[in-house]
Amino acid sequence: MKESPGVVDLLAVLAYAELSAYARMTEDATTLAPSLADRAALSELAVAEYAHFRLLRDRLAELGADPGEAMAPFVAALDAWHAQTRPADWLQALVKTYVGDGIALDFYREAARHLEPSIGKLVDEVLVDEARSRFAVERVRAGIEADPTAGGRLALWARRLVGEALSQGQQVAAARPELAMLLVESATAGGETSDISRLFATLTEAHNKRMAALGI
Amino acid sequence: MKESPGVVDLLAVLAYAELSAYARMTEDATTLAPSLADRAALSELAVAEYAHFRLLRDRLAELGADPGEAMAPFVAALDAWHAQTRPADWLQALVKTYVGDGIALDFYREAARHLEPSIGKLVDEVLVDEARSRFAVERVRAGIEADPTAGGRLALWARRLVGEALSQGQQVAAARPELAMLLVESATAGGETSDISRLFATLTEAHNKRMAALGI
Repeated sequence: MKESPGVVDLLAVLAYAELSAYARMTEDATTLAPSLADRAALSELAVAEYAHFRLLRDRLAELGADPGEAMAPFVAALDAWHAQTRPADWLQALVKTYVGDGIALDFYREAARHLEPSIGKLVDEVLVDEARSRFAVERVRAGIEADPTAGGRLALWARRLVGEALSQGQQVAAARPELAMLLVESATAGGETSDISRLFATLTEAHNKRMAALGI
Repeated sequence: MKESPGVVDLLAVLAYAELSAYARMTEDATTLAPSLADRAALSELAVAEYAHFRLLRDRLAELGADPGEAMAPFVAALDAWHAQTRPADWLQALVKTYVGDGIALDFYREAARHLEPSIGKLVDEVLVDEARSRFAVERVRAGIEADPTAGGRLALWARRLVGEALSQGQQVAAARPELAMLLVESATAGGETSDISRLFATLTEAHNKRMAALGI
């Protein structure tokens, strides 16, 4: 399987996504956590994102790319995503970590599905989110139990996150056609062009599962 | 050597210093770094501070202390220190990392000098700052070479950092006499009460060395 021209783009957008997630989760932990223990717990997840960034950056360098140059085209869109979705409180921060990043990660995972195996393995490795999911789900469910009116507000918030993610994603896809092609190739790998609808069904299903896990 | 009552205080203030340094360096890296490579380099140092926090928190728990409760008395003073010393640009951020944290670390190191060896070893371990120092010194020297007028401004900034550090340190010492006693015990361990002046001479000398290394 030859290396797709979109590979550097995929690793670069993912690297910058991890670097900016690390910074944003650190800020949310510092400014919104209700206790020092919660602050440490979210910081722990943030630091894990940084470790993922490090793996991706090193792989970009191995592929002969300059990591800074490779990431540069994605900075504006990802920074805009974070600026548009600043959580107002701790539960919003947790929902953002779980739902917002979740749908982004689904896209990356799909794009990597038909790449050279060592790239696919690396992408899978950095997308592991068990610890993050468990932490967010536990805390959000407890938060809604303590204040049932929070559920409706968080459901609206999650919808907004998805809308913003799709909006930024479209801009990235329009600006980086080779990256967009990875998704299309993945969706049509079975030979059926209608598999684009399968892709969207997969993403929607994963999103609905996350919402159900949160109880919203 | 029996365990001093100030030990939990020392580990706790140091733990919160590391946790808040991690958050602040992450923010400075994200908002002030002139390139993605610099941003990653400072983030790398921030993540190392978080790893130190983790060691200290775990040791607090081993000593039977609740880490959150143990850190709580120091949150206001350290947060005030960061609020009073927000760097306005990248070089100020680097000087803060090197000079401001440097003088704080000297105090912690002195306080730990006569503690039970395993505590002293842990404190030494988390206070290692070679990578941070090298990075800050290189970048600041290069910055002053590129713009010689920056030297004078950074010298004023460094003086302000030391003033704020001493001011917050005095408040902590007044509020936590057992912690302050560790410093006094350390200074007078030779039996000569005048060793308090030796302590200040040591701290001043270390500070002057850092200023000279920066070329300011």
